[in-house]
Amino acid sequence: MEWLLYFDLFGVFVFALSGGFDGAKYHLDLLGILVLALATSLGGGIMRDAILGVHPPAAFTNETYFFTALAAGLIAFFFANRVERHMDYVRFADAIGLGVFAAIGAATAVRHELGWVGVVLMSTLTATGGGVIRDLLVREIPMILRSDFYASAAIIGGLMYMVLHSEGVPEAYCMGLAALAATASRFVAMRYNVNLPQARR
Amino acid sequence: MEWLLYFDLFGVFVFALSGGFDGAKYHLDLLGILVLALATSLGGGIMRDAILGVHPPAAFTNETYFFTALAAGLIAFFFANRVERHMDYVRFADAIGLGVFAAIGAATAVRHELGWVGVVLMSTLTATGGGVIRDLLVREIPMILRSDFYASAAIIGGLMYMVLHSEGVPEAYCMGLAALAATASRFVAMRYNVNLPQARR
Amino acid sequence: MEWLLYFDLFGVFVFALSGGFDGAKYHLDLLGILVLALATSLGGGIMRDAILGVHPPAAFTNETYFFTALAAGLIAFFFANRVERHMDYVRFADAIGLGVFAAIGAATAVRHELGWVGVVLMSTLTATGGGVIRDLLVREIPMILRSDFYASAAIIGGLMYMVLHSEGVPEAYCMGLAALAATASRFVAMRYNVNLPQARR
Repeated sequence: MEWLLYFDLFGVFVFALSGGFDGAKYHLDLLGILVLALATSLGGGIMRDAILGVHPPAAFTNETYFFTALAAGLIAFFFANRVERHMDYVRFADAIGLGVFAAIGAATAVRHELGWVGVVLMSTLTATGGGVIRDLLVREIPMILRSDFYASAAIIGGLMYMVLHSEGVPEAYCMGLAALAATASRFVAMRYNVNLPQARR
Repeated sequence: MEWLLYFDLFGVFVFALSGGFDGAKYHLDLLGILVLALATSLGGGIMRDAILGVHPPAAFTNETYFFTALAAGLIAFFFANRVERHMDYVRFADAIGLGVFAAIGAATAVRHELGWVGVVLMSTLTATGGGVIRDLLVREIPMILRSDFYASAAIIGGLMYMVLHSEGVPEAYCMGLAALAATASRFVAMRYNVNLPQARR
Repeated sequence: MEWLLYFDLFGVFVFALSGGFDGAKYHLDLLGILVLALATSLGGGIMRDAILGVHPPAAFTNETYFFTALAAGLIAFFFANRVERHMDYVRFADAIGLGVFAAIGAATAVRHELGWVGVVLMSTLTATGGGVIRDLLVREIPMILRSDFYASAAIIGGLMYMVLHSEGVPEAYCMGLAALAATASRFVAMRYNVNLPQARR
C-alpha cells in the first residue's frame, strides 16, 4: 500500500504548510512555527488513532511523517515574508489536505468496521482535527465553526467513500474519489462563496 | 440495560441543545451549530472512552447518539431566535445533562475497576469535558473555571455514586441517585448563587 | 522503581503549583484553581497514556498523583496573595517540572519501543501537554508557541535520553541526565533570554 502512504504524506505536507504559514502570520519564532506545523499536520491523525485504539499512532512509529511535516514547517519559515502574496496557494493546499485526510479517515474507519455515522464522524475528525488544534493554539475561532463550508466538505468526502464502498468499489478508487469530492466541494465553496444558512435572530 | 441507553441519550440531547444554542448566540451558520452540538454532547464521552480504552467509542458505533445530537442541534437552529427568552430552560437542561453524565462516567469507571479518585475524576471529565470543548471552540473561559459550582456538582455526583456502590446498592439506583445529587447541587447553586471562596489578593 | 514514582510526583507537584498560581492570577475561585492545578499536572500524562494505549492512565489508578496535585493546588490557593513576589520560584519550579516530565515521557516511549522521533515527540508532548491545556483554559497563547525556548528544552531532554540509552546507559541515569539537560537548557534560556530566530516580515 505504498501509494496510500504517499497520499497521506502529501496531506501531512500541505497541512504542515498551512500551519507553518499561520504561525508566521502571528510572528512566531522558528520553533513556534515548527510546533504549529507539526500539530496541524499530525494532530488529526493522532486523535484518530487514539480514538480507534491504534497504539502507538502512525505519526510516532513511521518517522517519515515527522520529517515531512518538519520540511514543510521550514519552508513556511523561510518563505514567510512572502506569505501574503501566496495566501491563495495556502488555501489551495489546505483544501487538498482536507480531501486527502477525509478520505484516509474514512478508509481507516471502514477498516475498523464502523458504520455510516462512524465513518462520517471519523472522516470529519481526521480532516478538521489538526486545523482545530492549530486555530485553538493561535486563538482563532476554528475554521469549522465559521461560515466556510469546511466541515461540510469533509462530510461529503466521507459520504462519497461510503457510497462507493457499499457498491463494492476497490479501496484505492474509494479513496481517490472521496478525496476528489471533498476537495472539489471546498474549491467550489471558496470560488462561489457558498455559505450555509445562519440562524435567524 | 435499555434504560441506561435512554438515560445517556437524554444527557446527549440536553448537552447538544446547550451547545447548539451557544452556537446560535455567536451567529454561527447551520453546520457550525450542528458541529458545536455534536462536540458538546459527544466530546466528553469520546474522551472518556479513549482514556479507558473503549475502542471505538460508543458515539461511533451506536448511531442513535449521533442522530439524537443532530436532532437537538436542528432544534437549537430553528428556535435560535427565541434563545434569549429560553435561556433558563437551557441552563436547566444543562444541569440535568451534567448530572446524567456524571452518573454515567462514575458507572463506567467502576466497571473498569477504578477506585474513588479514578471514579471522581472520570465522573467530572465525562460531565464537564463536552462543555470545555464547546467553550474552547467559541473562545469563552470554560464554565468549570468560572465561579459557578459546576465541576463541584459533578464531583458530588461521583462521590454519591461511590458511597452507594460501596454500600452494595444496585447499579441502577446508584446512577439515578448520583445523577439526582449532582443535578440538585447544581440547581441549588444556581438558585442561591452559591460560590466557592476566591483566593485573597 | 520507587524512585521513579517520586520523580514523577515531584513533576506533578511543581506543575500543579504553576497551574494553581496561574489560576490565582485570573481570580479563579478555589475549585477553579484546583481544576487548573489538576489539568496542568495530570493532563500531559493522561494524553501520553491515551496515545500509547495505557488504559486506564496512571493518574486514574494511583491516587497519590491526585492528592499530590490537590495539595499543590491548595498551597497555590492559600499563598496566591503573595504570588507576584514568588513568580520567580514558579518559573523555577516549572522549569524543573519540564525536565522531569521530558525524561519520563522519553522513558515511557522507549519502553513502548518507539524510535528517535517517537521518543522526542512523546518527550515534548508529556512535558508541554499539561501547560498547553492550562494556557488554553485561561486563554493565553500557549507558552510553547511564544518566543521562549520551552519546547526546545523538552526536545533536548528527549534527545539526551536517546543518546544515553543508545550507549547502553542504565535507565535511571538516562532519566536523571535527560531531566538535567532539559531543565538546565531552560534555565540558561531564561537567564540569558535566548530566543530562536523569527521569520522575516
